[in-house]
Amino acid sequence: MNYSFAPHTKNYESSAVRDILKVTQQGHVISFAGGLPAEDIFPIEDVKIAYDKVFASGNSSLQYGLTEGFLPLREAIQSRMELKGISSHPENILITTGSQQVIDLFSRVMIAPGDVVLTEDPTYLSALQVFRSYGAQVTAVKSDDHGMDPEDLRQKIDTLNPKFIYVIPTFSNPDGKTWNQERRQCLINLCYEYNVLILEDDPYGDIQFHPDEQYQPLAVLDEEQTHVVYTSTFSKSVVPALRTGWVTGPQEVVQMMTKAKQMNDLHSSSIDQQALYYLLRDFDLNGHIERISKEYYLRMTIMRDYLNKLEPGLFTWKEPKGGMFMWIEGNETLNTTALLHKAVEKGVAFVPGAPFYVNQPKHNTFRLNFSHSAPEKLKLGMDRLVDVLLNPAVV
Amino acid sequence: MNYSFAPHTKNYESSAVRDILKVTQQGHVISFAGGLPAEDIFPIEDVKIAYDKVFASGNSSLQYGLTEGFLPLREAIQSRMELKGISSHPENILITTGSQQVIDLFSRVMIAPGDVVLTEDPTYLSALQVFRSYGAQVTAVKSDDHGMDPEDLRQKIDTLNPKFIYVIPTFSNPDGKTWNQERRQCLINLCYEYNVLILEDDPYGDIQFHPDEQYQPLAVLDEEQTHVVYTSTFSKSVVPALRTGWVTGPQEVVQMMTKAKQMNDLHSSSIDQQALYYLLRDFDLNGHIERISKEYYLRMTIMRDYLNKLEPGLFTWKEPKGGMFMWIEGNETLNTTALLHKAVEKGVAFVPGAPFYVNQPKHNTFRLNFSHSAPEKLKLGMDRLVDVLLNPAVV
Repeated sequence: MNYSFAPHTKNYESSAVRDILKVTQQGHVISFAGGLPAEDIFPIEDVKIAYDKVFASGNSSLQYGLTEGFLPLREAIQSRMELKGISSHPENILITTGSQQVIDLFSRVMIAPGDVVLTEDPTYLSALQVFRSYGAQVTAVKSDDHGMDPEDLRQKIDTLNPKFIYVIPTFSNPDGKTWNQERRQCLINLCYEYNVLILEDDPYGDIQFHPDEQYQPLAVLDEEQTHVVYTSTFSKSVVPALRTGWVTGPQEVVQMMTKAKQMNDLHSSSIDQQALYYLLRDFDLNGHIERISKEYYLRMTIMRDYLNKLEPGLFTWKEPKGGMFMWIEGNETLNTTALLHKAVEKGVAFVPGAPFYVNQPKHNTFRLNFSHSAPEKLKLGMDRLVDVLLNPAVV
Repeated sequence: MNYSFAPHTKNYESSAVRDILKVTQQGHVISFAGGLPAEDIFPIEDVKIAYDKVFASGNSSLQYGLTEGFLPLREAIQSRMELKGISSHPENILITTGSQQVIDLFSRVMIAPGDVVLTEDPTYLSALQVFRSYGAQVTAVKSDDHGMDPEDLRQKIDTLNPKFIYVIPTFSNPDGKTWNQERRQCLINLCYEYNVLILEDDPYGDIQFHPDEQYQPLAVLDEEQTHVVYTSTFSKSVVPALRTGWVTGPQEVVQMMTKAKQMNDLHSSSIDQQALYYLLRDFDLNGHIERISKEYYLRMTIMRDYLNKLEPGLFTWKEPKGGMFMWIEGNETLNTTALLHKAVEKGVAFVPGAPFYVNQPKHNTFRLNFSHSAPEKLKLGMDRLVDVLLNPAVV
């Protein structure tokens, strides 16, 4: 039978990242490809204790819940956000299946086919796929190491009338970049001036390498709480299997997203939500985040020191100030997709950078994840990778 | 700020059922409104044991998983479906956040604005909302107690060229109806003749009151496995808080839905999926389903006996053969929305039937859920309801 799918499905692609994950999950390959947190330091004992508390609380814990999410969890999230300076209210918080669902629900309620969405370049691959699946025209704003270029940003807002601007201002995926304060304020000012919404994706903000530095979420700068829709997740700070993220923002927007979520899946797992509530109440999550951050910093420095072994000028990268990724650019003739095949043969994997670009893909870039592999494995993988990178026959 | 949502959001409504749930969850009201399973017989001890096994299996159980879902769970679901005569393969099974997400993802990949979707009348309210949110023209096929009317079905398929047909053939929500074999076969034959897809929603099929009777899922009759997309869930047979459903069907369709799910939420909670796998492996789920079915039958008979106290001819209903709902029709002047306000004042709630209709709503209908309230509470609620129904001043 010939299945006539909706026309927009022509834009669907399977995520390159996840497809590579599938291959490298098997066998001997050391993968720096996936955006995976460190399994070896998951707080599994404390997670188990939290689930025990759910079941001890009685049968009603297993009944249907509200689409908005478990209220005590929303209250706990509000308190955590307040510590970062983000004002919110439990009624303006929606619990989701990871922050991926926030990107999808927000796009669903906002994008009409043909609408323009502005992004950084490169940016989170799956977000690009979502925006395009709803028919958005995604346009990249020129960016440098500090954020979006103010002139190009103003010009594109002014001429393209975007529906919203999607940014990951802190320890970005894929390129580990962090916006400076000036660029953050500039984005907010322009969005106030032109009345444009911002979707601020902040999954990595907690994983900070230099505790003395401060990076204000855009949601803090949005003083009237009218222009920023902010999303984050516990996938990186607790464990991914929980699949628990959230969104906060203008009430009208969050309520519309709640209606969309009701149609999408009624509500996310409420066993997980309740467990997470007990975890936030009784477990030292901030201590755990500090521990992760120190460990990820260590792993990043190991990776960095290997990269420093490469011939100066052949590859360039910036040391990230947090998060889980390094972004490397080779010389202009390098094709990292070809390189990946060679790397996998040698037992190591990364993600080619091209799919993360909105406009002209740079085929000489790739992303490395430093959080997943424990130090010894990381060293072994980097031995292999440096070997591949140093061997010109490879390319 | 003025938020310019996508135009299709004009079709969004908050579900009447869930809004009523919100009101009646508080206080003294005995609610027959929500589609809630019986909390008092949740197998909470066995659920807890299953989660313990997840955490005992080690840290990798808390890592990201595949969009398709936890493979051993998909294998276990395949085995369970085989017992019902449904042929499948783990590769053609996608695990979702409840079967609501199946309805949404299937609609997302199939419906182009203006496409016709055929349904029963009345039918599942939230499915109607989903179809309309994607721009579908929903059209009802004439139905009687045995299923869709073959002539009207043929005529509507022939003239309207529907994208798919949505049905709940066994113990339906809202009206508790069960299609006979002839009508099932007729639907399959027509869909083969005209090459139309069927979305078979089967959340209640396990909850059967007369074990000697047989109701073949349409997926069994779809011998070439080309025309039926079948969905079910563990929300009713195990516990709702797990939010674990699944879909199986033609590989091409399930794969497209998997791509949509990847964009939607990457994957559903994998802690829940693993726990469910251990539960299916080690717990006597079939014994539990038998226990639930007997208990729900008992509760249904209590409700039925109360309804029998009403003046003959004033209200009509059919005794359901399974599931969780009774559907009652009053005389033509009755308005059950007005009646609901009076009922809530008296401490009992139901769902007015009108929103479940596709075409002309019958304002004299309402739905009662008999599964949620334990017998004593059920009797107290029915005392109140009969009192409201017998008092003509009420209406």
